[in-house]
Order: sequence, then C-alpha cells, then structure tokens
Amino acid sequence: MASLKNGIKSPIKPAPRVAGSTQDVWSIINAAAASTEKQPVVNMGQGFFGYNPPQFLIDAAKSAVERLDCNQYAPPKGRLRLRQAVSNAYSPFWGRKIDPETEIAITTGANEGFLSCCMAFLQQDDEVLLLEPFFDQYISNIEMAGAKVVSVALQPPKSGMTKTHSAGDWSLDIEALKRAVTPRTRMLVLNTPHNPLGKIFNANELKQIAEVCVQNNILIISDEVYDRLFYVPFTRIATMSPEVERLTLTLSSAGKNFYATGWRVGWVLGPPELITYIVKAHARICYCSPSPLQEAFAIGFEQAEDNGFWDECIRDMKFKMDFFNDIWNELDMPYSEPEGGYFVVVNMSKVKLPENYPFPPHVLERPRDFKLAWFLIQELGVAAIPPSEFYSPPNQHIGEQWMRFAVCKPDSVLEAAKERLRGLKEYM
Amino acid sequence: MASLKNGIKSPIKPAPRVAGSTQDVWSIINAAAASTEKQPVVNMGQGFFGYNPPQFLIDAAKSAVERLDCNQYAPPKGRLRLRQAVSNAYSPFWGRKIDPETEIAITTGANEGFLSCCMAFLQQDDEVLLLEPFFDQYISNIEMAGAKVVSVALQPPKSGMTKTHSAGDWSLDIEALKRAVTPRTRMLVLNTPHNPLGKIFNANELKQIAEVCVQNNILIISDEVYDRLFYVPFTRIATMSPEVERLTLTLSSAGKNFYATGWRVGWVLGPPELITYIVKAHARICYCSPSPLQEAFAIGFEQAEDNGFWDECIRDMKFKMDFFNDIWNELDMPYSEPEGGYFVVVNMSKVKLPENYPFPPHVLERPRDFKLAWFLIQELGVAAIPPSEFYSPPNQHIGEQWMRFAVCKPDSVLEAAKERLRGLKEYM
Repeated sequence: MASLKNGIKSPIKPAPRVAGSTQDVWSIINAAAASTEKQPVVNMGQGFFGYNPPQFLIDAAKSAVERLDCNQYAPPKGRLRLRQAVSNAYSPFWGRKIDPETEIAITTGANEGFLSCCMAFLQQDDEVLLLEPFFDQYISNIEMAGAKVVSVALQPPKSGMTKTHSAGDWSLDIEALKRAVTPRTRMLVLNTPHNPLGKIFNANELKQIAEVCVQNNILIISDEVYDRLFYVPFTRIATMSPEVERLTLTLSSAGKNFYATGWRVGWVLGPPELITYIVKAHARICYCSPSPLQEAFAIGFEQAEDNGFWDECIRDMKFKMDFFNDIWNELDMPYSEPEGGYFVVVNMSKVKLPENYPFPPHVLERPRDFKLAWFLIQELGVAAIPPSEFYSPPNQHIGEQWMRFAVCKPDSVLEAAKERLRGLKEYM
Repeated sequence: MASLKNGIKSPIKPAPRVAGSTQDVWSIINAAAASTEKQPVVNMGQGFFGYNPPQFLIDAAKSAVERLDCNQYAPPKGRLRLRQAVSNAYSPFWGRKIDPETEIAITTGANEGFLSCCMAFLQQDDEVLLLEPFFDQYISNIEMAGAKVVSVALQPPKSGMTKTHSAGDWSLDIEALKRAVTPRTRMLVLNTPHNPLGKIFNANELKQIAEVCVQNNILIISDEVYDRLFYVPFTRIATMSPEVERLTLTLSSAGKNFYATGWRVGWVLGPPELITYIVKAHARICYCSPSPLQEAFAIGFEQAEDNGFWDECIRDMKFKMDFFNDIWNELDMPYSEPEGGYFVVVNMSKVKLPENYPFPPHVLERPRDFKLAWFLIQELGVAAIPPSEFYSPPNQHIGEQWMRFAVCKPDSVLEAAKERLRGLKEYM
C-alpha cells in the first residue's frame, strides 16, 4: 500500500476552532530550546516540576495498580475515597463539612475541569470575563463552548519598570470590570495564586469582584491550582459569604499539589446544584479520570498533613523563589516578588537586544518578549515564557516587557540558571 | 458559614447540552443494582473487566511512577515511546511503517479521542452519520461540537426473534445510507468489532461504506476499541485503499486492549494532515494524557507479542463467550453469536413480564428492555444493559427486544450468572 505523503491535499477541512496556524507559545519555546547549540538548555519555561512527587504518593500509586477496583473505570464523579479525602483536606478552609457526595467532582486535571465548567454553563455568544494576563488555555476552552472572552487587564505597579514590587501591586481597576459587564456576561474567571504574576488577590479585592458577580448573577470560576503555595495570607473567594459561595466553582489540581503534573487528576468544588452539571459535562468529555492515580492521590491527601507535606511545600518553594530571585537583585533588574505559586515575572526592559539579531520570521512577527525569550535560549541557554501570550492583542504591550520563569526546579538547575543569566550583564 | 442546602434555587442556569433530566442508562442500571435485595448482583452491565491487567503491565506502571520524566506532563501528542510502540504494533496490519511522529495522537481514552475528532472536524449544523445501535456517548460528543446526528439502523436477522444467528447477520441497508447523505454530511462513525452487537463488518460491507464516503468526501471515524478481540477475520477500513485511508481516523484504546479501562489512554491513528488537528483539539480538551500510564502501556505493547498476550486475549474471551452463551442454548433463547468484542445481545421477546409488576416511574416510561433489565436485577440479581438506549427514538423498537451482556468477567461470575438466569424458565 502506498504511504501517504506529508503535504498531501486532504479533502477534509478542520473546524475553525483548530484551524489557526499561529504556533502556541509552548511549541515555539520548546522547539527553540531543542534547536539551540547551548545544550542542555536550562528550562524554566513550562511549569512542570523538576523533581519527583513525595515517596508516599509514589508508593500509593504502586499499591493502587495492583488492585482490581482501581484498574477499571472510576465513577464519572470520581472515586469516593478521593472525594472524601478532598473533603477532609478542604473542609477546614470552608469552615464546614464539604459533602463528598454532592459538592466535589473529580476531573482529568484542572484543565479538563475548566472545560467541564465551560461545557456545563456556557452557550453560544455568552460572554466570559477574564483578568489579563490569563492562562492561555482558558481561551480555547471558552471558545469550544461557543462563548466569547471579554478581558480586563491587571495594571502593573507604576514603577514596575524600574524597581521590584510585590506581585500584589498588580492592580485591578474595578470600575473597568464593572463596565465590562453586559447582559450576556455569564462567567468570571479568577486565578489566585495567579499565573504568571504570582499575585494573591487580597480579601478586599475579592470582595469587590464578588460584589460585581453577585449583583449580576455571574458564575465565578476560581482557578486555585497553586493553592498550596502561598507566602502571604490566602483567601478563597468561595468562603467569603454564602451569597458568593453559591455562585462559585473552585478548581484545583492534585497534580500541582503533589508535584505530579503528568498524573492528570484535578477537581471542582462547589454547590450541589452546580456540581451536578459539572459531572454531566465531565462524563461526556472523557467519561472518568485515571482511576489508580485517583486512588493514589486519595492516599496522598490522607497522609500529607501528618507527613508535614503542606508546610514543606511552602518552605521549599519559598526557598527556591528567594534563591533564584537573588540573580535579579544582583543584576538590578526589577521583578514582581511573588505572593504565591511558583512563577516569577521579571521586567526585562533594561535588556538591549542586539540590532539585526537573526530572529526567525515566526519570532520576528511577535512582541518583544518573544524575541527576548528566543535570545535567552540561543545566547544564554535559558528557557522562559514570554507573557504577552497571556494577553489579548490590545494589551500585549503590557506583557512584552516581562518574562516568566518557573522555579519548581532542583536547586542545582536554579544555580545553573543564575550562572547563565549573569551573561545578561553584557546586554544592559 | 451557613451550609448550602440541597435544592436551593440557583441563579445559574446550565447550558442546554447538560440540562436534560433524563437519566442515562448507566445511572439507572447502577442505581438499580445497588437498590435490590439480591446482593451481590452479578454485574454483566458495564464493559469493565472483572480481572486485572496482565502482571507485566502492572509491573511497568510501578516502574514508571518512580521516574521523574514519567510523572510530569507528557507532550500533548503523547509520549514518544508509546507512539513508537503503537506504530510497531499496528504497522503490520497497515502493511507499511506508521510514522510515530505524524500519524498517531495519544488521547485520554478512546472516549476523549472521539471528542477530539469531533472538536477537530465538526462545526455548527454539520451532520454525522451513525449506524444504529451506537455507543451512546457518541451523541453527546457530536453535539458538543455543534453537529447533528443522522442515523441509519442496522437490521436484525429476519428470524432473529426465534433463532440464534451470527452477529454478522445484522445488516446495513446501503441504499438507506446513501439516502442519508446530504451536502452537510461531514463524518461517518463506524464501530467494528461492534458494541453492542458483536458484529465485525466484513470486507464487502466496508467497501460499500467506504465508497459512499470517498464519493462524498466524508471523514470516517472507525472506532476499533475491541480490535484485539476477533473470532472471524477482521478488516480495518483504513487499510482498504489509499483513497479510504486518507479519509479515515482509527480510534483505539490501550485500556480495552490490556484489561485496564480505568487507565484512560487511547489513540487516534490517521494521515498526518488530519492527526495534526486531533493533537490541537486534544491539547485544548485536556492538554495531555496520564504520563506514567502511557509509559506503562508502551512497555506493555513492547512485551505483549512475545508474551503471547494477544493470542491469549482471543482464546480467553472466546472461551468466556461460549461458556456463558450456553445458558441461552439451554433456555432456548436466541442470541447474536458475536464475531468480536466481549458483548452479546440476547433476544428476550420470549420473556413474559408479570402483569402489574411494580416498575418505578423512571423505568415504566422507558421501552420494554428497560423493564426487562429492571426485572432481571430485582428478581434474578443479574445486571445487563437495555440496548434501546443505543437507538434514536424512531428505532428504539428494534432494541427493546434485546439485552446486552458483557462477558469480560471471571469464569466464576459467568457461572453464577448462568445459575441465576436459569430462573428465567419461570417467566417463559
């Protein structure tokens, strides 16, 4: 039989939702990192962990794959043991018992959890409020459900180009948010601790956002996948009042919690009358989530507190964050001091890109931060993510002065990155 | 904080795609099985395996979860080792080397693989041809992409109500299929070996179907998740000619192949110019599939042939099928002798349901097979699936005389089921 050749003209056309030819940031950065001569590249781009999950979680997975009941389909809403473990782990934050039968839906990572929220509650021409910068995947999930994105940009600290500030100083113009509400607004997406900024929305900000949503019956999706990594007090918007809670679905990720981003288990927590539709949407998207890994995470949650794991998470990541960010102090480059999570955004306006640098066309057509990212990979062998990808076109100018680094890497990698980044002195 | 009460009136309305209140067949049968006094119910309903994956697969998973690279995100198109292993396992059937870089996309089970096909190629008001009966999940996946189902029923053998036939005798009216094609027809879904019928479409039938698709540029989705279980010759439609291959995406499931339905790994195989859009859709649905379980399946595929596993699969399942179906010979009840897969449909028109039997309202409003299924659970303690759920309303009358049993259970369970099913003698 003749082999099909690449480039053959197919009579089958893709749907518009996947037809765009623009490469996403992950493909560009990963391809660039693979192409440079500076091997191995120190990769601080994508937010995967550079170390293993804790041994008690690995042991739990090894025991789960031996068990018949863990190797077959899980119920669409998730294994009971995991729902109970999540309930036990989160009820203290909610100040009441969370019902594992009706208030929790297990999903195939927070990503598919977010898509489940969109498929459960959005329809053609609904509008969704996003705060920029935003995790880029939100857009395609919202659009798959037929809805449209309306975004309001968080404003950088006024002197953010010249000195280091708290990530908390990125501010929301609440009046701009109010103006963005229309009769078609169905959902607002909050992300705290925030990717990429490292901002934790404080109680006052959450109160203002919640008021807008309560007044307009807007569903709040609170993406809290970095919820175990906070270096300042962390308020969960669902816990602010019963009026807010009944409008709120909180997303989280067992993979992020336990350093196992490849295990693909997350959950949605919220009122029973909303969770019932999340389960329906999730069942239709992928029927159920990986069963033995659900069981392992259940055991992980049962043991984490006693093992001191949650405290260790914060201590370790805060150490990494400070250890790495010393390089910016040394280089006198301003950054946003993270309040939570494992990303830091650094203001790179001081870096002078050489004139006539041979950027490839697909980088040349992008904002300055893509050129910076390309340059960092080629000249210094360090990969980071250009955050203009996390903005809508009118606001990409805000993002293009910054660069996102993920610090969830071994200390030796952070040390190597710092050593390489010292090379920036030549370009300032 | 006040606990939210069940039944509170929420201001948030679900999207129409999840708003329907009709219970799906799985919920009804599982709830019925949980409610009866005949505990434990012998469950031959859902097609999960009643036994573990082979030990070499379990061992592979245990080693994978120890490895850093297996515990973090996989590439959206899947781990290279798994794509290579699938290529090596399937290239012999294709008669040429399948390119693991461009012709295979790993998905989160075949279910999410099917949704990826829909999201990649369907848009609002497109039409999709289904052959009835069909796996019920197809419908919601097609509708999530905005498209509509147009179905053509396979016709039961003429004397199927009175005597046992080959499942291959369920026949397609090719003229009816041609009449169902419109300018909006974008996709045809084939399922072979077939769930629930156990039919394997023969080369002549495939040729007729393929001609319709080639003439009308219709994308063929061939759901071949039971591809390792065939008891008559099995032809894969993609391998019939280059003209057909360039229109065909073949779906399969590592979970079904290796008795691990809870591991959620499947794949789509097809021409590069189509697979590229599958990867895009899949990345947007759930970013990537469970990484350590992908690695385990890769190792599984590498070892399966040498371990004689594929031959064992056929031998074991065919034994179970014959062993179980003896009960129908004994009861003189006609069934469709499966050509592949692990389901058998049995014609139950002989069974007389007692008058005034106390069926609950949600069963009473459904076709006769739902009543039969309820009755079997309550009176005999055996759960099976009513196949009218796999038909569109105009054709449910075909399904309501049959019942689907899954034989992928331990021999002791099959033996127990047979003993209980002897109780049917009282009702004939």
